[in-house]
Amino acid sequence: MNGAQALLRTLVASGVDTCFMNPGTSEMHFVAALDTVAEMRPVLALFEGVASGAADGYARMSGRPASVLLHLGPGLANAGANLHNARRAASPVVAVVGDHATYHERFDAPLQSDIRSLASNFSGWYARPASVDELSASASAAVAAAYGPPGRVATLVLPADVSWSDGALVSPPAQRERPAKIDDATVERAAAALRSGRPTAFLVGGPACRADLLGRVASVAALAGARVICETLPARLERGGGRFEPERLAYLAEIAMTQLEGLEHLILVGAAPPVSFFAYPSKPSWLVPPGCEVHHFASSSEDCSAGVDALACLVGDGNTRGATRRVGVEPRPQAPESGPLDSRTLGQAVAALLPDDAIVSDESISSGLAAFVGSASAGPHDWLTLSGGAIGQGLPLALGAAVACPGRRVLALQADGSAMYTPQALWSMAREGADVTVVILSNRSYAILNMELGRVEASAGGDRARRMLDIGDPDIDFVALAAGLGVPARRASDAGELSAALAESFATPGPSLIEADLRRR
Amino acid sequence: MNGAQALLRTLVASGVDTCFMNPGTSEMHFVAALDTVAEMRPVLALFEGVASGAADGYARMSGRPASVLLHLGPGLANAGANLHNARRAASPVVAVVGDHATYHERFDAPLQSDIRSLASNFSGWYARPASVDELSASASAAVAAAYGPPGRVATLVLPADVSWSDGALVSPPAQRERPAKIDDATVERAAAALRSGRPTAFLVGGPACRADLLGRVASVAALAGARVICETLPARLERGGGRFEPERLAYLAEIAMTQLEGLEHLILVGAAPPVSFFAYPSKPSWLVPPGCEVHHFASSSEDCSAGVDALACLVGDGNTRGATRRVGVEPRPQAPESGPLDSRTLGQAVAALLPDDAIVSDESISSGLAAFVGSASAGPHDWLTLSGGAIGQGLPLALGAAVACPGRRVLALQADGSAMYTPQALWSMAREGADVTVVILSNRSYAILNMELGRVEASAGGDRARRMLDIGDPDIDFVALAAGLGVPARRASDAGELSAALAESFATPGPSLIEADLRRR
Repeated sequence: MNGAQALLRTLVASGVDTCFMNPGTSEMHFVAALDTVAEMRPVLALFEGVASGAADGYARMSGRPASVLLHLGPGLANAGANLHNARRAASPVVAVVGDHATYHERFDAPLQSDIRSLASNFSGWYARPASVDELSASASAAVAAAYGPPGRVATLVLPADVSWSDGALVSPPAQRERPAKIDDATVERAAAALRSGRPTAFLVGGPACRADLLGRVASVAALAGARVICETLPARLERGGGRFEPERLAYLAEIAMTQLEGLEHLILVGAAPPVSFFAYPSKPSWLVPPGCEVHHFASSSEDCSAGVDALACLVGDGNTRGATRRVGVEPRPQAPESGPLDSRTLGQAVAALLPDDAIVSDESISSGLAAFVGSASAGPHDWLTLSGGAIGQGLPLALGAAVACPGRRVLALQADGSAMYTPQALWSMAREGADVTVVILSNRSYAILNMELGRVEASAGGDRARRMLDIGDPDIDFVALAAGLGVPARRASDAGELSAALAESFATPGPSLIEADLRRR
Repeated sequence: MNGAQALLRTLVASGVDTCFMNPGTSEMHFVAALDTVAEMRPVLALFEGVASGAADGYARMSGRPASVLLHLGPGLANAGANLHNARRAASPVVAVVGDHATYHERFDAPLQSDIRSLASNFSGWYARPASVDELSASASAAVAAAYGPPGRVATLVLPADVSWSDGALVSPPAQRERPAKIDDATVERAAAALRSGRPTAFLVGGPACRADLLGRVASVAALAGARVICETLPARLERGGGRFEPERLAYLAEIAMTQLEGLEHLILVGAAPPVSFFAYPSKPSWLVPPGCEVHHFASSSEDCSAGVDALACLVGDGNTRGATRRVGVEPRPQAPESGPLDSRTLGQAVAALLPDDAIVSDESISSGLAAFVGSASAGPHDWLTLSGGAIGQGLPLALGAAVACPGRRVLALQADGSAMYTPQALWSMAREGADVTVVILSNRSYAILNMELGRVEASAGGDRARRMLDIGDPDIDFVALAAGLGVPARRASDAGELSAALAESFATPGPSLIEADLRRR
């Protein structure tokens, strides 16, 4: 058995059975080995950022790492932005980076570069086995490292000669770490805060955005009269179908500060403390109100679940069932049958029509908030956001989620500017027959930057500046673009057309794209 | 004056007057400052890899660095593959990476990452000024560092607060380094080799691929009966119009070895020693024949020009004029008027129709060799290749070359698979009205990998492996894709259609795209 075959078998033995890939010459033995290891599903991407973003979406929805096959340093660089997002989402990913043969490195051939330096930016684990003897143990260690906790990107560099050499053996799965227990003193301090009668909130993130744990947090909060606030960019928020709906911390720091105003205790469960996404002149970066005590109750790599149960025992009787739906969720709207298309009516249409068990990949940036708020009243679904802030995630994430969850409809709410970072994902959706509905929120602008230009107190912005934020010259025709990549597409110019297009797409297997024309008229 | 304004003025004062950009919030003051520094031309890209590849093309054709404006670590990662290519081409580039405010860093906001680690992969110079007092001096140092020699990527990280703070001053241009002189002993050893009567060749690269110096090398070679071989992937080869045409070292190591067989002296002028692009089982990486002495005459960062002149004095009378065109250049063909379209007829059409002073961005990978060989007989033109081997360069490089050289026609010979890494470049071509003719060599396959699969002795490749190298399911419709991005496009299915489409495109200002259907039928 050669190295590539042993690597594939080791990955499969460790539960990694999907590989998003964009291979080159150094990876040919890995590719050839796919025909001998039928358990590994290969998914081709036309660009590495699609492969890495898909692995993130796959991990968020399956809880398991996918592997990503990349071609030397430049391939890893191309995958980098979405590996950054995966890191911030604590998604387990095994990045296999094909490299030159070990003996070829000293010749500094054109594609040679320092792969380790790149990997260190987004990768929490790195190995470069120098022989087939080391390869499989490295691979099973990579999978265990990817699982964490926290989930992380594990980078395994695969020299070509290690891949093609014979005599490799398969390694069994490596032992995984368990999440650290929350100590009693931490639980007691949080309980005291909840019992204090002072204004208190949970800030939930990571694993605490999954329905079961979120419901238990909500139950404890309800006993104590505390609020439950969700981090701004949850990797996966399970919601809808009557599940508890937390408040969501706003992206805009000035609004977030209003949300947090008056709190005296903020209990972090799987979330980082609230900070501004960017710095702004004369605005604070740290959003915790003065005098508010921050309780670092449980990070996303600690045992949030057991910690919350222990807290429930101290605050109530330990019964965490019966969490109630947050007051303030509006009744489910009707889909608009006519009228202008704007972010409000788009939100209505999504809320009205979102299929049960849908998965929403939200890279809507400036135009999608109403869809999020409105769909709290929809059936059960998952909402995935841009955890790392690196745009170009939405379409790849949707692809990966669809691969992970056959039979569930994926809705990609996709800003037009961000869509253009990784439009190649559409082609993989077509090839895989992925059940993805892509809605392009087409306002022909980096609209958020037009807002940010004012928020950072940059001078009003003359014509040259505005032109750098305007993507309407020439207009991008997403219907033509999608057709070029094999995805059927149509344009919606009013709310009724959007409703009809959504309903049709949701009822049709495979991918389709709707360009929602949100230009102000 | 705030930091951003001082930075722009300092760049302009140092001769950097073009900025390819994909900005975000951290870069808003830089963008706003564009309206106060009219000498800086901003060019918007929809993806950072387009901006960095365009800067490479601009540098190759203008000899000057462009600036590239990027958004934090993920933006730099997206730019990374084409910065790798720029590094390998020794192209000067000033990469300005907007970052969080200095005081914001400790909050580890979502977009925070270790930018320096990324930059170290492809960047030969790095600075992160901590205040406006340091900013402008850093900027002028960055420009000088970018010039080298050798030309390099200089990364200047621009914290948001440094960008928006007032009190900044403009810095004058920094002193540039001069290329190191070739020592006399080196020149004498090369002269002895040339006089020895033994089989000798020059291997030229970098600056020695420019017509003037290449002609002088050819003249010396002619005096001594030596051969002149060009590196496999020259950044810029000036050719055509009766200029001296060197042999070109083949990409395939087995062919390259045949080319070099029997040589006893190999004199490197601006080129690295010949090594295999990839390692292959049972094939050597080092392509210099046994017993051949390698003369490290001049690296691309040394004074190749003066060195060659000194050599000419020792070998001949110092008169390096009158270099002759290489024997073996075929007469210029007629454009085919009909017949099947394949790489041979495509090469004929390009050779016949290429306008004088054209610039060819060659990312043709497996289908473009005949076009290169044939166009030796065309008028004067520049041929730019994939120096770093990281695909996705061709379209951005063409954009940058067109921005650098208004009035010259750019021809992008672009493989279909590679085109899909950075198709967003088409949109910037449309916006800028760039005179680019894009020919997509559409064979619906990573054809070179189908060849490499065999060359690396991977097992023949079953259906699953073949499917990872096939990009024909679904077919990519480049005509629709280009139309979606604002570039007029047509398809050519036979050689006559291609000739007509090329002639029309060459005669029409602005960009257009031709999908050359090279599928085997």
